[in-house]
Amino acid sequence: MRRLLGPGGRDAVAVLLVGDELLLGSVADSNGAWLAQACTSAGLRVAGMEVVPDDTDLVATAVRRRAGTVGTLVLSGGIGPTSDDVTRQALAEACGCPLVRDPEAEVAISGWFAAHGRRLPAGALRMAERPGCARMVLNPHGSAPGVAVELGGTQVYAVPGVPGELRSMVSAAVLPDVLARSGLLRPTLSTSVEVALLGESAVSARLADVEAEVAGDPAVDLAYLARPAHVSVRVSVRGEDPDAVRARLDGLVARTEAALGSDVMGRDGVSLPSVVLDLLLARDETLACAESLTGGGLCAALTSVPGSSVAVRGGVVAYSADAKRDLLGVGPGLVAAHGTVHPEVAEQMAQGARARLGTDWGVATTGVAGPDGLEGHEPGEVHVAVAGPAVLRSRTLQLPGDRRRVQRLSVAHALDLLRHCLLAEGAGESPRTVDR
Amino acid sequence: MRRLLGPGGRDAVAVLLVGDELLLGSVADSNGAWLAQACTSAGLRVAGMEVVPDDTDLVATAVRRRAGTVGTLVLSGGIGPTSDDVTRQALAEACGCPLVRDPEAEVAISGWFAAHGRRLPAGALRMAERPGCARMVLNPHGSAPGVAVELGGTQVYAVPGVPGELRSMVSAAVLPDVLARSGLLRPTLSTSVEVALLGESAVSARLADVEAEVAGDPAVDLAYLARPAHVSVRVSVRGEDPDAVRARLDGLVARTEAALGSDVMGRDGVSLPSVVLDLLLARDETLACAESLTGGGLCAALTSVPGSSVAVRGGVVAYSADAKRDLLGVGPGLVAAHGTVHPEVAEQMAQGARARLGTDWGVATTGVAGPDGLEGHEPGEVHVAVAGPAVLRSRTLQLPGDRRRVQRLSVAHALDLLRHCLLAEGAGESPRTVDR
Repeated sequence: MRRLLGPGGRDAVAVLLVGDELLLGSVADSNGAWLAQACTSAGLRVAGMEVVPDDTDLVATAVRRRAGTVGTLVLSGGIGPTSDDVTRQALAEACGCPLVRDPEAEVAISGWFAAHGRRLPAGALRMAERPGCARMVLNPHGSAPGVAVELGGTQVYAVPGVPGELRSMVSAAVLPDVLARSGLLRPTLSTSVEVALLGESAVSARLADVEAEVAGDPAVDLAYLARPAHVSVRVSVRGEDPDAVRARLDGLVARTEAALGSDVMGRDGVSLPSVVLDLLLARDETLACAESLTGGGLCAALTSVPGSSVAVRGGVVAYSADAKRDLLGVGPGLVAAHGTVHPEVAEQMAQGARARLGTDWGVATTGVAGPDGLEGHEPGEVHVAVAGPAVLRSRTLQLPGDRRRVQRLSVAHALDLLRHCLLAEGAGESPRTVDR
Repeated sequence: MRRLLGPGGRDAVAVLLVGDELLLGSVADSNGAWLAQACTSAGLRVAGMEVVPDDTDLVATAVRRRAGTVGTLVLSGGIGPTSDDVTRQALAEACGCPLVRDPEAEVAISGWFAAHGRRLPAGALRMAERPGCARMVLNPHGSAPGVAVELGGTQVYAVPGVPGELRSMVSAAVLPDVLARSGLLRPTLSTSVEVALLGESAVSARLADVEAEVAGDPAVDLAYLARPAHVSVRVSVRGEDPDAVRARLDGLVARTEAALGSDVMGRDGVSLPSVVLDLLLARDETLACAESLTGGGLCAALTSVPGSSVAVRGGVVAYSADAKRDLLGVGPGLVAAHGTVHPEVAEQMAQGARARLGTDWGVATTGVAGPDGLEGHEPGEVHVAVAGPAVLRSRTLQLPGDRRRVQRLSVAHALDLLRHCLLAEGAGESPRTVDR
């Protein structure tokens, strides 16, 4: 089940994360984990990773030490315009090739600032420099182009450290280039099964039979990627015969999905918001949100998906009892009797959002995000509810973690309850149930 | 200008993070940033950091390569009881000293399990092994003891990878030991100046004089950390005399803040939401949000801050023109004449949120997040507005990037306009201005 990690091989990748801030502890790196995941998903193996300060000689030394030991070396960070950006110079030293100014890159950089209505800052054209023996890599989402060069048989790529720019450049340009140059494309097929709200241990326990079947089989990987409120189970199969690979993969995915049942949201990168939106769009139905402790995060998660405005009409964030009454019609008697942290409050909020915004569905959250308690309730007590054309459901939760985690998990539970209601209504289940 | 984070020196530290999971991307490392922060705070310099797979030879090679180049080497992870825990064996190979079973450690491990009411698991006493030339380090919060050994003049420490255990062992045992052995403790002070909405290039250009003053001065570092819509400028000063270090730092920070003017949000980790909330709380005033293209993200950014519910009453997400009219009172005539992507629509939304939720301030967003255009407007055209007790302001923007970036930048611009209005009102500026 475990992939062999180690140096060597054309499919081996090393990563150098360049930046003093990573060594000062002023920022936690997220690029390393993303790069590791992206390379693993592409069938490559990350053999090592290193954080190097913004120092030309040290970066050059690290590049020379890794060159020739792996197929690919990715450097992130240090390619911006300021004086502490040393990656281009370090590559030049490592290659023994002085920096030259790339005319096409100058045009691209000037064009980027012009297209964004900004004056070209002093020093920005430093980003057009590359070692004479290197080529530039276009940056679709930022001003700093990347650099690619071969050194000792290793393809070396320098990409931006800004996470959004790194991700788009690596996905769109670097990984396709690596795969094309290395001739690595052995028939490898993979599918991710996306699981909502279960922990990695629970998923692994449910998949004990599948794990046992593939244990020690070098043709199959079963990898778990845990994210907040979401685990991806990635099944990959290698082999020479594409039909046999496809058949093996289909069988393993079917067994994985059967073992996980309705906790499976979908396949290959879907998320709770995208799944809920697809269900709504397929039925041509609309949704409104009513939020207390999630403070807009529920609606924001939905509206971050392109095209969501067709189904999501909007919502109300009502922190105070007054706002819950005035904007959502939550009954003052109910609040007087039970306070605002109560499943029926969540239900009335969901109904209120549905009525006020004239939608088919309403989804609501109320509870205590913390750090302090509220009305005698502990942080983490949360109620989520869904109101639909013929259904009213709520779910009571005791969620772990700090404020942001409670908010994030509340959003996930509200969306998951909505997902279950949308699926159940399609299947003709009972109209009103309360999970407490 | 730059802190020398290179190798060498008794105050230099290198970190090896041991674990396949960090190279598969299945977990994001948090120990590296914590260790960097802890070492920097203790006056040490982290000279390098590396992720190494669970492979005895590769860990031993990495240890040998770093030994003699730094005063301290910290390995985290791989000291548990299972077969993929290889750090003890790797240290033994690196030192050329076979593993021995430490009798005191056996007692400590057995005692830990007994104290926690658990049977001693098979293999647990493997954790009592250390190279013959090494000593053990007690683990106050877990069963796995650490290991300390000197190699080539470098103090090498192996600590657990479990974050809570690592932090307690490093704070309680490792750092005091390092400082006692090295006789270090030079005063280092640093301050971060937090800048809103300027790019790294623009910040650097504004600080050209400060950069020139400190260029080549080994006692001063000036480091930039770029995040979305936010740059941190970290100024650090080293020296023997604490008063002189403080005076130098204060002078540099004052010049940095003067050069950046009102684009400075504050110091040492503040963010736009936290700054706006602090301004509101200091005045005992309240806020409501009205959002179109940001879809709840503006209110969510504010409510993610603990204690925000005192100032943030809530808000309305109104995607459709109907919702803008019904929930926020935006005039149908205005929408008929200009559509919903217009500065006056943003202004009426801000006023509507303020009126409907009965708050002192309202802040609003409208525009086109993309990927598609809307009502003849291109993605990225955004209008933000603020309504206050005696002010109504809007700002028109053309923002770059994909849907999420446009949404995130819109949130930042709305909060920054609110920040300026709150500061200006305090300073008695003119009541109604429109930046278009």
